[in-house]
Amino acid sequence: MPETHYTIVIGSGILPSVWPQIKAAHGGFNRFVVTDEHVVAAGHLNTLLGGRPASHFIIKPAGEVSKTIDTAVAIVEAMEKAYFGRDTVVIALGGGTVGDIAGFAAAIFKRGVPIVHVPTTTLAQADSAIGGKTGVDSSASKNAFGAFWHPAAVYIDIATVATLDDRQYRCGLVESVKHGLIADAGYFEFIESHLDAVLARDLDALETLAEHNCRIKGRVVEEDPFEKNKRRILNYGHTIGHAVEAASGYELLHGEAVAIGIIAAGLIEGELGLSEPGRSDRVRAVLEKLDVPTKLPADMAEEMVIDLLRHDKKAVDRWPRFVLLDRLGQAHCEAGQYAVQVCREIVEKVVRELR
Amino acid sequence: MPETHYTIVIGSGILPSVWPQIKAAHGGFNRFVVTDEHVVAAGHLNTLLGGRPASHFIIKPAGEVSKTIDTAVAIVEAMEKAYFGRDTVVIALGGGTVGDIAGFAAAIFKRGVPIVHVPTTTLAQADSAIGGKTGVDSSASKNAFGAFWHPAAVYIDIATVATLDDRQYRCGLVESVKHGLIADAGYFEFIESHLDAVLARDLDALETLAEHNCRIKGRVVEEDPFEKNKRRILNYGHTIGHAVEAASGYELLHGEAVAIGIIAAGLIEGELGLSEPGRSDRVRAVLEKLDVPTKLPADMAEEMVIDLLRHDKKAVDRWPRFVLLDRLGQAHCEAGQYAVQVCREIVEKVVRELR
Repeated sequence: MPETHYTIVIGSGILPSVWPQIKAAHGGFNRFVVTDEHVVAAGHLNTLLGGRPASHFIIKPAGEVSKTIDTAVAIVEAMEKAYFGRDTVVIALGGGTVGDIAGFAAAIFKRGVPIVHVPTTTLAQADSAIGGKTGVDSSASKNAFGAFWHPAAVYIDIATVATLDDRQYRCGLVESVKHGLIADAGYFEFIESHLDAVLARDLDALETLAEHNCRIKGRVVEEDPFEKNKRRILNYGHTIGHAVEAASGYELLHGEAVAIGIIAAGLIEGELGLSEPGRSDRVRAVLEKLDVPTKLPADMAEEMVIDLLRHDKKAVDRWPRFVLLDRLGQAHCEAGQYAVQVCREIVEKVVRELR
Repeated sequence: MPETHYTIVIGSGILPSVWPQIKAAHGGFNRFVVTDEHVVAAGHLNTLLGGRPASHFIIKPAGEVSKTIDTAVAIVEAMEKAYFGRDTVVIALGGGTVGDIAGFAAAIFKRGVPIVHVPTTTLAQADSAIGGKTGVDSSASKNAFGAFWHPAAVYIDIATVATLDDRQYRCGLVESVKHGLIADAGYFEFIESHLDAVLARDLDALETLAEHNCRIKGRVVEEDPFEKNKRRILNYGHTIGHAVEAASGYELLHGEAVAIGIIAAGLIEGELGLSEPGRSDRVRAVLEKLDVPTKLPADMAEEMVIDLLRHDKKAVDRWPRFVLLDRLGQAHCEAGQYAVQVCREIVEKVVRELR
């Protein structure tokens, strides 16, 4: 199986150099690219290939709706049809859903072949391309299918985010905010003070973000690659976030739902006496400047969110654990555990306050 | 992820004691049993549960035809529907296909939950329950889907094979013969000299077989859990065997096809000057006494077998490598590699000789 140590290359305009690097690292291997129609339209597939022919699979339609076991099966069957064997490297070019689907397909193709991530969105560059989590849904079961499958390499060309639409761009930054909150107060302050440059897609600011994100997430994953404990801190804001995302019928983007989840986590911290003065206002101010939601959509029933929490992937005894902060840059730890029990009453109260 | 070291318990009539042992080892976990209609009819599910209620999934129809991604998806959805989370242990009760499907479902359910194998056939007890290989097919792609997923424990009740039909019983013994051939001449001689007792399902003889099989396979897998090299020796007879199995439209059982593959490997060894005097006659005599086929079915086209070899999971450059023997109990190694190149002409000649 792939190692949990791997190369991450960060730069601006590096996409044309990625293909020869993959070829050099996987000599003699077949290369199979998985991407989606948005990425193709943005010109990134052409830039990656530079006119070279290559077997590929274009996910249609782009987005969460295609993140299904059926798409993963279709990718495996396309590789099989091309007579590709275990001597194949899969290359995921795109955002979070492309990486999730392609990574899962690589994990289950002939008991696993290497995956290289080439993330092209703020979300994927900050988060999903690093750490080896993959997963897809079925029509009956959201997020029920997945595997840990660490990449062979990650190539982050920060210039590729120039083609993202504004909503995707902004909501992908929520994971960067989360990294600051859970692990590095200085990084949170950098985001606070450089938010205009980040929103203007300034390449220097984006490169600093990418470096911090990879360092923080990489260190946490290295310490706990299969999410036994410490890695759970990366789930900050995600427990209620996932429930809100599902309750919206995936109308809310992942980062938007996580923003609401981060606000909810802050409210729980307040209930438990874990909040420092001023912290929650600073967090709220950054999220508001990102123009992501900080409360539930008007038409969303709180009861639905609460019911969905019972289905959480990490639920124990049908109720999830929560990641909380002690202070800015420091996750809360209780009896050695980073995902802690919070009684239903407090969670239900907080969900009702998200108005 | 599960460890590559795990408990294997071997005994006669131990099935009623397995449930409490799993409960003790996975305290607080949900238990989900995957089995098939034959195993239920044989009474083994009742014996395992001892009247306790338990969530379970019964594969229908039993056998290779149900070893599909659709069945694995249905199992995952059944666990999801029961509100089971990552605190779930999957128990595979049955033969090779049950173990393959249940193991794969456990590997992909919420990024992986523990699997316990309780094999009830000669094939599964000798081979498939040990070693962590799992896999399923789609309608378009045989054997394209799989994962390495090592069990949390294996419980082998040799008395359960009493209910097997004669054909299943005999062909499952082919993997035991293979273990002797690749790793232990003394074990091969034990099988040779105790074949009447083994065929009479004598419990002492079966216990000796189980012990040898687990020791040999366990040692090879421990040395190379993800099949980088040494583990490939377990594939002896399987390269041509898999092609023959596919060419028969899975009318031949796995062990029957592997028996033909073992004969083919012996013929390749002869072509390459690797055979000792008398060895191939001894191997053929044991397989004939097991009453498994040693040549291609009359209606099978050699060309189809050869074409299918190009689709082999382990093919490099669209042609598989082969595992061969230097002598009884000793796999052939060339430049440090146990799966070696054999030119197409020799393989094609040998396939045509399987008449």
